[in-house]
Amino acid sequence: MKTIRTVALIGKYKSPEIAKPLLELAAFLEQRGFSVVIDPLTAVHVGDLRRLVLPLEGIGRQADLAIVIGGDGTMLNIARTLAPYDVPLVGVNVGRLGFLTDVSIDTMCETIGAMLSGEYVTETRMLLDSEVRREHLRVMDVLAFNDVSVNKGTEGSLIELEVRVDGQFVYDLRADGLIVASPTGSTAYALSAGGPIVHPSLSVLSLVPVCPHTLSNRPILVSADCTIEILVRSAADARAHFDSHSHCELKEGDRILVRRCKHQIRLLHPSSHDYYHMLREKLHWSETPGR
Amino acid sequence: MKTIRTVALIGKYKSPEIAKPLLELAAFLEQRGFSVVIDPLTAVHVGDLRRLVLPLEGIGRQADLAIVIGGDGTMLNIARTLAPYDVPLVGVNVGRLGFLTDVSIDTMCETIGAMLSGEYVTETRMLLDSEVRREHLRVMDVLAFNDVSVNKGTEGSLIELEVRVDGQFVYDLRADGLIVASPTGSTAYALSAGGPIVHPSLSVLSLVPVCPHTLSNRPILVSADCTIEILVRSAADARAHFDSHSHCELKEGDRILVRRCKHQIRLLHPSSHDYYHMLREKLHWSETPGR
Amino acid sequence: MKTIRTVALIGKYKSPEIAKPLLELAAFLEQRGFSVVIDPLTAVHVGDLRRLVLPLEGIGRQADLAIVIGGDGTMLNIARTLAPYDVPLVGVNVGRLGFLTDVSIDTMCETIGAMLSGEYVTETRMLLDSEVRREHLRVMDVLAFNDVSVNKGTEGSLIELEVRVDGQFVYDLRADGLIVASPTGSTAYALSAGGPIVHPSLSVLSLVPVCPHTLSNRPILVSADCTIEILVRSAADARAHFDSHSHCELKEGDRILVRRCKHQIRLLHPSSHDYYHMLREKLHWSETPGR
Amino acid sequence: MKTIRTVALIGKYKSPEIAKPLLELAAFLEQRGFSVVIDPLTAVHVGDLRRLVLPLEGIGRQADLAIVIGGDGTMLNIARTLAPYDVPLVGVNVGRLGFLTDVSIDTMCETIGAMLSGEYVTETRMLLDSEVRREHLRVMDVLAFNDVSVNKGTEGSLIELEVRVDGQFVYDLRADGLIVASPTGSTAYALSAGGPIVHPSLSVLSLVPVCPHTLSNRPILVSADCTIEILVRSAADARAHFDSHSHCELKEGDRILVRRCKHQIRLLHPSSHDYYHMLREKLHWSETPGR
Repeated sequence: MKTIRTVALIGKYKSPEIAKPLLELAAFLEQRGFSVVIDPLTAVHVGDLRRLVLPLEGIGRQADLAIVIGGDGTMLNIARTLAPYDVPLVGVNVGRLGFLTDVSIDTMCETIGAMLSGEYVTETRMLLDSEVRREHLRVMDVLAFNDVSVNKGTEGSLIELEVRVDGQFVYDLRADGLIVASPTGSTAYALSAGGPIVHPSLSVLSLVPVCPHTLSNRPILVSADCTIEILVRSAADARAHFDSHSHCELKEGDRILVRRCKHQIRLLHPSSHDYYHMLREKLHWSETPGR
Repeated sequence: MKTIRTVALIGKYKSPEIAKPLLELAAFLEQRGFSVVIDPLTAVHVGDLRRLVLPLEGIGRQADLAIVIGGDGTMLNIARTLAPYDVPLVGVNVGRLGFLTDVSIDTMCETIGAMLSGEYVTETRMLLDSEVRREHLRVMDVLAFNDVSVNKGTEGSLIELEVRVDGQFVYDLRADGLIVASPTGSTAYALSAGGPIVHPSLSVLSLVPVCPHTLSNRPILVSADCTIEILVRSAADARAHFDSHSHCELKEGDRILVRRCKHQIRLLHPSSHDYYHMLREKLHWSETPGR
Repeated sequence: MKTIRTVALIGKYKSPEIAKPLLELAAFLEQRGFSVVIDPLTAVHVGDLRRLVLPLEGIGRQADLAIVIGGDGTMLNIARTLAPYDVPLVGVNVGRLGFLTDVSIDTMCETIGAMLSGEYVTETRMLLDSEVRREHLRVMDVLAFNDVSVNKGTEGSLIELEVRVDGQFVYDLRADGLIVASPTGSTAYALSAGGPIVHPSLSVLSLVPVCPHTLSNRPILVSADCTIEILVRSAADARAHFDSHSHCELKEGDRILVRRCKHQIRLLHPSSHDYYHMLREKLHWSETPGR
Repeated sequence: MKTIRTVALIGKYKSPEIAKPLLELAAFLEQRGFSVVIDPLTAVHVGDLRRLVLPLEGIGRQADLAIVIGGDGTMLNIARTLAPYDVPLVGVNVGRLGFLTDVSIDTMCETIGAMLSGEYVTETRMLLDSEVRREHLRVMDVLAFNDVSVNKGTEGSLIELEVRVDGQFVYDLRADGLIVASPTGSTAYALSAGGPIVHPSLSVLSLVPVCPHTLSNRPILVSADCTIEILVRSAADARAHFDSHSHCELKEGDRILVRRCKHQIRLLHPSSHDYYHMLREKLHWSETPGR
């Protein structure tokens, strides 16, 4: 990784409580000789009038590291936007441990100080590149970090989807929906829908049906080199969701394509980072049991 | 059961293929001395100009038996409408065996002939009585045979529901939705969502979360004498569905109440009726396995 | 309930740490005018030489109330033994809240004092009466509080079971096993195997397959008035387990019968008892979520 | 692949019905100029006195192709034995389509004839190399094609396992057992236990808990380059199973190690082979649905 000189600080939207610790971190970094830049929304929220303000694209081009202070949702949003720029990211949580935000705001100066002294591990995470095609038009083209899902809309009826992997027909799915999840997304919506936990180092996609009519329609794992194609077969209202962030109303005949994005996210973690420890914490595996 | 004199025939909507067998059944019944009445939609579809046409309410008041020719969906619709009149129902399927329609159209004259000679068993099925309350108004009041569900709408985000049973707080559910199913509905949407199969003779309601965020939020079975109350907590778009037939857009603070209806459905089955046989057929339990 | 004069104290086996609080409770009860009796094992463990020692059968006949100090496992054992005597039971937990032991040992004098002043609610729980028949012999006859299960043994292969409910054939199950659970048992082994949570007031039995080969072999709920019959079809080694307490090695052709026991357990709870609160605690539903 | 000259025929154990078609296939192959060899058990069963009989090790060394006629179980056994020799395998099923045996015995001469003319696709499948260590001894060392599982034994109680992946602690599992499955095994026992379907091309291992006490202990997918270590923590009886074929009684403190075998299986399929088609057939996805 290239030498870190400029560090961007990006805070959770509309969260005044992060102003004070964020400014403390900024001062801490400057004292250590780093340049600190800030994005416009954060600058307004924390009332910082002194530091260089750059839009996210500018941060992407100029920062050597971006520290995101918020929760996993904030991290998902920032990571998608910064993906083309290959800026490494550090995630700071403002309360509970996040899957992506493993530095506690309470100890962030100390932890980030150590990380900037070289005590970190790098992890790359896959992004999903997804588009919606209607006849010969591409009506949507969007990145997702966790998942792309096609769900029933407002009418409450099953939708029918024809699913192909690299052109090979998989099945006609009648269900509430279908989730295509990255390993990062395997612990999000896909987990609630019955999908497995997929280690982030794996180059695989999970196809997880949501409430399938056929009970043997179980989650399938395929290579992340595959292109997933979902054809909307029934006329009933269906919608595509990308990280629960972007949405697209679908029509019969629409095709949703999902493949691995050429860009990846680089996450920096403290040296003590331990994926399984995080799972144990988040999923309460460390609880004393009592059958 | 009182003596059967008048038999109503009700066909699946927009299904011209049932015209011929329906008219044959009508002739068969008249030959045996029964009066046959028909509902207006069916009369139009089968082109019957000779027989007495009665609206469903009239059928409810005057018929001693209603024979529904179609699938489970048709049966659900007719059963809800006829519920207040206590007319026993016979379900004829036009293709595959249904959970509620167990007489095959291919052999219906023979089977129904035997049933009208007394070779039948009676089964009662519970209906759900549901209403939606917004502040002090009752904005919806509807019967459901299978289930009442509250689902996320078009935005694809979790909804938050506060669930009470007979006034006792059960949990704050964060999920794609919640299904309250009758035993009849236990083999429909609730089964796809992970709920158990509930024998139709049981007086219980299933509360089945749909993709709950907390993995230990498993289906719960409570007495059908309970009142289920679902409070919509988050502002995100949520909708209530009743048998996937009626729908209601929900607002934050809305309360959905579900309780057992005072009316019941009476289904007549051929004497050979066997609930477990039907499960085996519908769920492919009779297939030769091959682990 | 008849007036309580004699209270039995029964402690967890080999748990010296309960000696002091148990003796304090004994003194507290005697001060209030109750007679206290103790079972022989507990008397030895707590070193009580003063009080009347009665075997469990004697407690069953003479005590008006039995207080069990331990965990759910202790309660299961004592409840099965005392079942024929209809002695109400109070469960005291020595650490974590139990499903059946909801009085904390830390505050038990206060809580039990209030209960003996009338501030309690009574709950009845079903027991299972089970027997194993080999040809014309009854080779085992045992009560279970949670569940009766038939599991594969040491060879690790599927077992084949033919299951009937009130003589009606349900299915040929190829699986690791089958659990027949009471509502009390629905939150024990059956829950781990994918069964639903069944409110203890319901008169139903859960049939929960363990790792069924056919994926649509889902849990089924039937009336507790039914007799469940499980025929061991394959020659492979299979075993029956009763509350994970008693066991029986099975042979091909053996039949395991399960029905509701004519005796019931009466549990007394503090007035503040709340079943759903206990579920929330035990299943971590009250945790702050973080999808 | 090197030119095929010698073809081995291996039949299912104790299956007289395959004698006639196997001998016809032998004649067909010889007519085409291939040498046919046969293993001793098959030779006895089909009563073949004319052809060269070689033990499996000899087949491994001398045959250019092995055709296994039987079911998936036969294929698992033969594949494990032939693994070190890198002989490609063709699987012929004698009834139902198998996951590994996709040539029908009814048309095998025609299909295999076409395959030997070059109309085939090659697929490699991972094997698992597993050992059991007791203190400093290796008490078992065995290959598995589908899965290695540690299950409770005859006492019916939970077992406690400490699981590590590449030395990193994952969790203390309290469960009926734990399955480590190859992609091939993902559609076998692991599927019944709630694991996902893993495409055979993926280099991943599934860790699937069996009836875990903690409900959030969901299946985890890790890289097949990892070493899985399972430590038996409780004294209760536990057993290791390898493809439900070999077994090992475990003691407290035993460690089971599972890693990818250096050998792989090469399966030859007809050119028309379609993995998803096979899933649809085996899991009844092609059935007309009927919610």
